Amino acid sequence: MQSIRIEKTTMPKSKPDAAVLGFGKYFTDHMFMMEYTPDKGWHDARIVPYGNLSLSPASTVFHYGAEIFEGLKAYRTPKGEIQLFRPAENFKRMNNSAERIRLPQLDEAFALSALVRFVDMERDWVPDAEGTSLYLRPFLFGNDESLGVHSIRNAVYVVIASPVGSYYPEGINPVKIMIETADVRAVRGGTGYAKCGGNYAASNRAGEIAEKKGFSQVLWLDGVERKYVEEVGAMNVMFKIAGVVVTPALTGSILPGVTRSSCIRLLQDMGIPVEERLLSVDELMDAAESGKLEEAWGCGTAAVVSPIGQLSYAGVDHIVNGGRIGETTQKLYDTLTGIQWGRLPDPYGWTMKV
Amino acid sequence: MQSIRIEKTTMPKSKPDAAVLGFGKYFTDHMFMMEYTPDKGWHDARIVPYGNLSLSPASTVFHYGAEIFEGLKAYRTPKGEIQLFRPAENFKRMNNSAERIRLPQLDEAFALSALVRFVDMERDWVPDAEGTSLYLRPFLFGNDESLGVHSIRNAVYVVIASPVGSYYPEGINPVKIMIETADVRAVRGGTGYAKCGGNYAASNRAGEIAEKKGFSQVLWLDGVERKYVEEVGAMNVMFKIAGVVVTPALTGSILPGVTRSSCIRLLQDMGIPVEERLLSVDELMDAAESGKLEEAWGCGTAAVVSPIGQLSYAGVDHIVNGGRIGETTQKLYDTLTGIQWGRLPDPYGWTMKV
Repeated sequence: MQSIRIEKTTMPKSKPDAAVLGFGKYFTDHMFMMEYTPDKGWHDARIVPYGNLSLSPASTVFHYGAEIFEGLKAYRTPKGEIQLFRPAENFKRMNNSAERIRLPQLDEAFALSALVRFVDMERDWVPDAEGTSLYLRPFLFGNDESLGVHSIRNAVYVVIASPVGSYYPEGINPVKIMIETADVRAVRGGTGYAKCGGNYAASNRAGEIAEKKGFSQVLWLDGVERKYVEEVGAMNVMFKIAGVVVTPALTGSILPGVTRSSCIRLLQDMGIPVEERLLSVDELMDAAESGKLEEAWGCGTAAVVSPIGQLSYAGVDHIVNGGRIGETTQKLYDTLTGIQWGRLPDPYGWTMKV
Repeated sequence: MQSIRIEKTTMPKSKPDAAVLGFGKYFTDHMFMMEYTPDKGWHDARIVPYGNLSLSPASTVFHYGAEIFEGLKAYRTPKGEIQLFRPAENFKRMNNSAERIRLPQLDEAFALSALVRFVDMERDWVPDAEGTSLYLRPFLFGNDESLGVHSIRNAVYVVIASPVGSYYPEGINPVKIMIETADVRAVRGGTGYAKCGGNYAASNRAGEIAEKKGFSQVLWLDGVERKYVEEVGAMNVMFKIAGVVVTPALTGSILPGVTRSSCIRLLQDMGIPVEERLLSVDELMDAAESGKLEEAWGCGTAAVVSPIGQLSYAGVDHIVNGGRIGETTQKLYDTLTGIQWGRLPDPYGWTMKV
């Protein structure tokens, strides 16, 4: 396994107040980096002061979308310890993303140990206010200085870290969601299951239009039939319909979320049946009209669980659970955040101390 | 209109020999740049020495695929003049791409005049050997130092230039194409019509697998029915079937190529009927089997026209025109390259002197 060179900053920054953190606006003192070349493989692993990357304007990353990323958090427990949540899952997914868009594979064990080393070095940056955490952003991109369209030879892997505020500083408020019928985020056979830049670029316009109409985000439908529910904004989505939680099956156009799989496990252990399957917007709307749609929520690393209070489709608004957070949603949120922040025991072995 | 600041290099590079040029491997002495911020709009337009970009590791361009580009060429005429080919079309398309993925709009007239100024400054870099040219790569990317997924506020626009060799140094050889049935490049409602990085990231894997099987590229099918022909590699595609040229209609998942539209116009003026419509792979295979498929070619800025000599679908190989370049393909190639390199008169007003 590679050794990691350490270069400490000589100008440590002051840490922002928890109240101003927001999401992904402040960055810690250091970053982890290494480069890949065909002859040397991954090399020159190092933790260096956070700072700009200097890249050729012809670098593949600026032209051909050769970029993948991950997102996970370091949490401070009530005892002041630092822990990660299922970090190995992120590197497993990153390699799946790399396979799809042809970036070099990471050594998952090394990437994880490097992450732990990096978080350890930045441990004072993990905030301790309620709901705050240190967001970790590993990313990997192609860096050939060549405009030919071909598979990547040279690549760069970087991890940066950002102390982030509570997603719900004023308490959890269910959001209004518009079901998107014009733009498509991803399609079967495409890159939807990979965490790559192109999926997000495809999503911007619809999100922006929805926001202007007073919605928080859009609910994506599949790109083939424009019929089956896929994701909500950049989160996975779940619906409790007549006592059963239904979540879209991983058909290839949906991101296999770590929070999604954790929710499924928790729900099963709560004795709530979970169905991973195709869910059509018509079935969903029928359930909403007949009162069978009991709860709806998005799930992802940033928000953990985000209750949906309204679904709008073709101009018709459906209020979910009277616009309030549902019992299952709340219980999921409490259990998952309890485990993540170390307030509850972790019977699953999901957390990893740093 | 903005003024353009000029900073000339103090270390001009030596120009590579035409024989080694290839595509997009060498770059000229300078680059054009400007930045966008919400308060100032586009500003600080400048031509400066070609060199690395220094960007925050949190810049949107590394994470969310916020990147679009264009490609066009400057040609040296037999008289030694420099000319561009339909450059206004590129900026029109760039703004359409920007609208789709939510990057700021360019002032098309300014972008064109800046391009002309830049090419004028690099005019000695336009090579004069047969089939060579100066490839121009305008690109525009989001540059917010923030990991929140939202519309871009800050952006950067850059133009770099690369002297490129003849696409056919050993004469035009028709290529072997595999019809792709697993991966999807783009889907209606997605970003296929935009020239954005994500489309290329989605294409890498299939192209690589096809190459390993001995093919030059893949022929993409539509993402909805996996039935209709869309593009070949990163080019538009045309088929001459029983005297009629058929090319996929611009349904939203296909790039509206400048070379494509130029070919359509030239074909019409040659008295060859052109149909822009849906073309199913079954119809194409039937035409190939019955001998009605007379010619097939890709078209794009890099290759201009690239004849297809073999189409393989589901393990069956179909030879097109005995594996030789067809008469119409050759005539299109000769006419278009004749106009582009100034060997033939330009009755269309497509060329623009620098």
